[in-house]
Amino acid sequence: MFDTITQIFDHEHYLREPLQLYEPIEYTLHLGGKRIRPFLLMTANRMFGGDDSQVRQAAIGIEVFHNFTLLHDDLMDRSPIRRGQPTVYRKWDENTAILSGDTMFALAWSYFLAQPSPRLHQILTCFNQTAIEVCEGQQYDMNFERTAQVTIDDYMMMIRLKTAVLLAGALKIGALYAGAPEADIDHLYQFGIHLGLAFQLQDDLLDSYGDVAQFGKQTGQDIRDNKKTYLVLKALQTAPQPLRDELSALFASTPADADAKVERVWQIYSQLGIRQQVEDAIAAQFAQATLHLDAVQLPPSAKTPLQTLIASLSGRKK
Amino acid sequence: MFDTITQIFDHEHYLREPLQLYEPIEYTLHLGGKRIRPFLLMTANRMFGGDDSQVRQAAIGIEVFHNFTLLHDDLMDRSPIRRGQPTVYRKWDENTAILSGDTMFALAWSYFLAQPSPRLHQILTCFNQTAIEVCEGQQYDMNFERTAQVTIDDYMMMIRLKTAVLLAGALKIGALYAGAPEADIDHLYQFGIHLGLAFQLQDDLLDSYGDVAQFGKQTGQDIRDNKKTYLVLKALQTAPQPLRDELSALFASTPADADAKVERVWQIYSQLGIRQQVEDAIAAQFAQATLHLDAVQLPPSAKTPLQTLIASLSGRKK
Repeated sequence: MFDTITQIFDHEHYLREPLQLYEPIEYTLHLGGKRIRPFLLMTANRMFGGDDSQVRQAAIGIEVFHNFTLLHDDLMDRSPIRRGQPTVYRKWDENTAILSGDTMFALAWSYFLAQPSPRLHQILTCFNQTAIEVCEGQQYDMNFERTAQVTIDDYMMMIRLKTAVLLAGALKIGALYAGAPEADIDHLYQFGIHLGLAFQLQDDLLDSYGDVAQFGKQTGQDIRDNKKTYLVLKALQTAPQPLRDELSALFASTPADADAKVERVWQIYSQLGIRQQVEDAIAAQFAQATLHLDAVQLPPSAKTPLQTLIASLSGRKK
Repeated sequence: MFDTITQIFDHEHYLREPLQLYEPIEYTLHLGGKRIRPFLLMTANRMFGGDDSQVRQAAIGIEVFHNFTLLHDDLMDRSPIRRGQPTVYRKWDENTAILSGDTMFALAWSYFLAQPSPRLHQILTCFNQTAIEVCEGQQYDMNFERTAQVTIDDYMMMIRLKTAVLLAGALKIGALYAGAPEADIDHLYQFGIHLGLAFQLQDDLLDSYGDVAQFGKQTGQDIRDNKKTYLVLKALQTAPQPLRDELSALFASTPADADAKVERVWQIYSQLGIRQQVEDAIAAQFAQATLHLDAVQLPPSAKTPLQTLIASLSGRKK
């Protein structure tokens, strides 16, 4: 399946006049990436007997949309690097990032509109609702950077909007194209939500406990950046005083010796058993996802690709 | 008609959580404005026997989209003021302007998707094509700021994309909702294109020859800003040497005495008869628009609102 998807994206080109607008789009969409959203969309469609040609354009559309959000997020977050290459606002400039991003959002719609379906209205409504929620998620993420009090519930709501709904939406859209029954679509959507939450919590965990060689980035970066991840929020929730105050103070500081800070935070995490708690939370999300996949009224063989995905993600080290 | 539209926008609210995302949207959409795009959409729908309720959501959608483009354009152009009030990126910040703008683009789709029609696919495709063209127009506009050689043809292409296609698209969408015949829709679309071109050329003309009291802004601002409008492009096209070089040099300079520069440019315009040439070009666009309106297969009375619009615009002083 991933071969098919790689081929689709290798062969899809976006370049036309004015080049100043479309070159950054071509660049962004040929940087690679896991293409997990097109995979979910096409897999859901196949599960219910759909043919790949029935969703080819939509699969591109969902990836174009995802890359639009990355492009604008990178500008808002001032991230210099994406997939090992300079981000658009760094390679070109801010205005290019804004306008090429806007155009990608519009292009995503072109792909969906080019993919006929008797359920197109439902598909477009789902896509649009998802797009709005992703924007809301990014806003909450930015809000949380400036807020002292963020609860675990707040955090879960934020990552549901910022990350999970697009995975869930990709599955739902794929199933809609295949004409799947409503109840099954709902279960697949919930499967996607829990998968997305598990994936984000894993990202948080790997930042502290990933194998550097395999994870590919320096561990503890979230701590250095004072990022409010599930780990620190869980630690703040469970830490007794005065440990909680110390942790708060650490996450409000940017000391010259960042390594010492990271070490001290890890000591606290260890004392509180945070690693185990987060692993349990991840396992719980995967278990929820599995329950929803089980509830889909299809023969077991149809579910194999998504079961394989869960199995490979549960063991991921990067 | 404009009373109906004012009422619609007075009663429409966009506020919900997270407020940091939706407050700038509420602010932007309650700053007022001519609401010319909703007017065109509703007028086209009425012309072909449609009921206002049939396009109420779509009329809001096209205005939300238009305001999204203004919001991002103001950020890209670093414009501090819009409709007499601070622009979003100035009142809040750049990230707010980016993300609230993105959300407005998505919201525009929500309004269109909420407005049922057997021709919805055609309507959405028209809207999407228009959105892409408006982005392309903004890119050409930014390109032209950095290019020495811009022809009149380039300029007309740019303002067609940046301004005219959205007026034309509003008319086409309104007519589509009313179930108008294809040939009439095409004429209405062309009417909108020529109307938009005339409108933009008028803006260019008024900057030099508008009555300051009525136009509401200092005249000659485009000259101060070295903006490549129809006036200077026409002057460069028709000026003999060495006048052309002098004009080029003036538009590459930002002298301390800007008033003297404006005066000298006006002298050159006067010598070349630019005002008359631009007035002729505007009249030609209005004439083209009128021809297309005439060709629409409807009784004369149905065309009155658009004829009135043309008549009032041809004489506009602001």
